[in-house]
Amino acid sequence: MFEKVLIANRGEIALRVLRACRELGIRTVVVHSSADVHSLPVRLADETVRIGPAASRQSYLNAAAIVEAARQTGAQAVHPGYGFLSEDADFAEICAENGLTFIGPPPQVMSALADKSTARALMRKAGLPLPPGSVETQPTAADALDVAAEVGYPVIVKAAAGGGGRGMTVVRSAADLPRAYARTRAAAQVAFGDDRVYVERYLADARHVEVQVLCDNHGNGVHLGTRDCSVQRRHQKLIEEAPAPALRRSTLDSLAETALRGALSVGFTGAGTVEFLVDEAEQCHFLEINCRIQVEHPVTEMATGVDLVHEQLHVAAGTPLRRRQEEIQLRGVSVECRVNVEDPDRGFAPAPGRLDRFRPPGGPFTRVDTHGHAGYLVSPHYDSLLAKVAVWAPDRAGALDRLDRALGEFEVSGPGVRTTIPFVRRVLRDGAFRAGRHTTGLVDRLLTTGAGPAGPETAPARAGVDPAGRTPVTAAPAAAARRRT
Amino acid sequence: MFEKVLIANRGEIALRVLRACRELGIRTVVVHSSADVHSLPVRLADETVRIGPAASRQSYLNAAAIVEAARQTGAQAVHPGYGFLSEDADFAEICAENGLTFIGPPPQVMSALADKSTARALMRKAGLPLPPGSVETQPTAADALDVAAEVGYPVIVKAAAGGGGRGMTVVRSAADLPRAYARTRAAAQVAFGDDRVYVERYLADARHVEVQVLCDNHGNGVHLGTRDCSVQRRHQKLIEEAPAPALRRSTLDSLAETALRGALSVGFTGAGTVEFLVDEAEQCHFLEINCRIQVEHPVTEMATGVDLVHEQLHVAAGTPLRRRQEEIQLRGVSVECRVNVEDPDRGFAPAPGRLDRFRPPGGPFTRVDTHGHAGYLVSPHYDSLLAKVAVWAPDRAGALDRLDRALGEFEVSGPGVRTTIPFVRRVLRDGAFRAGRHTTGLVDRLLTTGAGPAGPETAPARAGVDPAGRTPVTAAPAAAARRRT
Repeated sequence: MFEKVLIANRGEIALRVLRACRELGIRTVVVHSSADVHSLPVRLADETVRIGPAASRQSYLNAAAIVEAARQTGAQAVHPGYGFLSEDADFAEICAENGLTFIGPPPQVMSALADKSTARALMRKAGLPLPPGSVETQPTAADALDVAAEVGYPVIVKAAAGGGGRGMTVVRSAADLPRAYARTRAAAQVAFGDDRVYVERYLADARHVEVQVLCDNHGNGVHLGTRDCSVQRRHQKLIEEAPAPALRRSTLDSLAETALRGALSVGFTGAGTVEFLVDEAEQCHFLEINCRIQVEHPVTEMATGVDLVHEQLHVAAGTPLRRRQEEIQLRGVSVECRVNVEDPDRGFAPAPGRLDRFRPPGGPFTRVDTHGHAGYLVSPHYDSLLAKVAVWAPDRAGALDRLDRALGEFEVSGPGVRTTIPFVRRVLRDGAFRAGRHTTGLVDRLLTTGAGPAGPETAPARAGVDPAGRTPVTAAPAAAARRRT
Repeated sequence: MFEKVLIANRGEIALRVLRACRELGIRTVVVHSSADVHSLPVRLADETVRIGPAASRQSYLNAAAIVEAARQTGAQAVHPGYGFLSEDADFAEICAENGLTFIGPPPQVMSALADKSTARALMRKAGLPLPPGSVETQPTAADALDVAAEVGYPVIVKAAAGGGGRGMTVVRSAADLPRAYARTRAAAQVAFGDDRVYVERYLADARHVEVQVLCDNHGNGVHLGTRDCSVQRRHQKLIEEAPAPALRRSTLDSLAETALRGALSVGFTGAGTVEFLVDEAEQCHFLEINCRIQVEHPVTEMATGVDLVHEQLHVAAGTPLRRRQEEIQLRGVSVECRVNVEDPDRGFAPAPGRLDRFRPPGGPFTRVDTHGHAGYLVSPHYDSLLAKVAVWAPDRAGALDRLDRALGEFEVSGPGVRTTIPFVRRVLRDGAFRAGRHTTGLVDRLLTTGAGPAGPETAPARAGVDPAGRTPVTAAPAAAARRRT
């Protein structure tokens, strides 16, 4: 096992990785921007290196500075977390050139999967079902119109280099396509330095279901079951759960096996996620493979008992998988929600500020991952994710009640600070959501029918969990700028 | 299910019960003393009633005021937590007379089990193995000397009305017995209003192993496996784990079955704990049955996935047990430690005060039960238990590393405040403890060989978990006045 690992990230995921390292006896180096000098991961790290100013491009995206920090401190490996450089094949390559183990798949695998067009082609070859649409990218609007006419509207125009819910435009008719095509290309060029786009059928009322896989450097792989992440706003996940609810056992099994086959077919190693859309008939359509730990990994951990970051570290150190497929058993249901510092009354706009009060929930089967603390200044420079609250229970209804209880006792407030807590609690009371019948259209429905962030309730709240309680919770939902899912 | 439950306790256990009620849709009434007006359970409760001044006798032990609070608020049941009135059969009787459901066994069962002499006789009848000693109490020192001569020294003189590690004196020779006998009788009279004592063989190098049982009002019972609570100082538990380590499978199975048989034989209902001492040869000796939720119940919850307070509420409401024995599976290992506000450098004396900083640990498989928060004034009037940190991992070594990691990030400090955290971390590094070979003599050995609270390490600390870290943790161990285990 490594003796020292550099954590090239910030916030809750830096803390998450630090905890895993410490539990495995690995010393930690946390690199940070000048905005994060007093952050919790920096305070808790064994060693720290300031690598640049607040702006990500000069700090958390600054590959040269990170590699230099690793050299200075003698770190043997780099854990990139999620977002930032976690899916940057060039960075993985630079790490390798400098004798550092990048904790993720090989650069060429990352590179192939980062290009959605290539990934679709590879997965089609491996036998995975794709949504109707193109494998190739469309160099002109006319080509895009041809594909759209073939698959039928609505369609979605996607940046080949996109991912994590970014670089996508839904188009309802041919009249709207040329403009959407041009806009998506321009946005992709700015965001990813790559303006290639492709067109596929848009599945509006589908579920987002993904499969966690784990593969070692010796050709072995296991899956850790499914997650449902259908509660999304503008393709950003708000609530995730494991396993995916209300699907046939055969659908779940088939998804898991298919996903693992796809990952192994491209030589994937480490922890990855294979994402699908599942339609009403339970037909599954491959979306993308993510090459990193996901924000929502805790629900899989709580349902399986497997510590995914421990396993990432073991795999990166060359250890063969420590569990056979039959040793991985899902038990009960885990549900997580993201607590973002956003104002749902203002279109989920970031609502950062200093936290005067911050007391996360505790108690049975309740896990909180957060870098927040009383006195913490939420920076406007980064992602608005402040905390993840994940719970477990023997059944889904129990897990939803537990999450609602936990959110009800979460105290977070400060001047100008708003969070997504009230909006999440509103989703938890929605009848379709409670029945597990919700699709990716849920949040839009709630936002268009709602009266303010707390909104009308579509299912009776349980006695004793009245949101108009006495806890000084200040909260509400909002748009994430840099977040990746 | 009840619509409204009164919680007749304070601190972390009041919060624990409140959480369970809320998850089940039950409204909560929290009664409190004037010292606890601003406490977390009071802040989070649906309704609160101030029942008296700080002194427990006039508040948390004031049965009349509690029953009156239930009447005023319309509560249907009373959850007594642990300590205070939780094992007071008279209180259970008063509740029944006032039409309130006492959440615990029937008063006559509590009464029989509260008398250790009666309990021993009942358990012997049910076939449970007792330590060599008397079933009857000894009315004179001469009688006690006779029994001691028969069973051999060392012996322990125990108050018949004692329990939870209180009212016990170890005696090494006949010369010391008369004085110890007189002292224990006098102390028992003061503490319990009952000076009857009995004598049994003292097992010095044994393990404290207990079995969690759960019985309904319809004659059904299940066990939820074992817990080891051998890490004790003056019979007060410091670290607990589930399942008990390093015992033969046959010993564990036999303990669990024996315990359940004993509980069912006396008509026990609700959640209870049957305590044993297990000697080097793995011979088991019955100690006592506790009629309430235990401080250490989280480790059983984490290992089984069963929420014991939910089950207490269901059983009290008349629901038949919701799980058969074969549906209760232990998975992995859970370890909990108590974070007491005590100063190990001064004989574990209470070291209360205001908490300037308070940030409990978080992250994977880590549970914190605490009523503490930044700004909280730890009252000198009550038990010194401030928090319980419980973790889970697939194996024991992983759980111990995780607990050490969690304690390393626990920030708690304030003027004059000390905690048991450094002492617990020292135990976690002890070679015998890590090997699971420790007995109830462990803490005394550490205290007599130690150099200060952090002491010399008998096993190498893992890299990256150096207690001389950068976290501003202020901590250390101490004597508990009113605590029950």
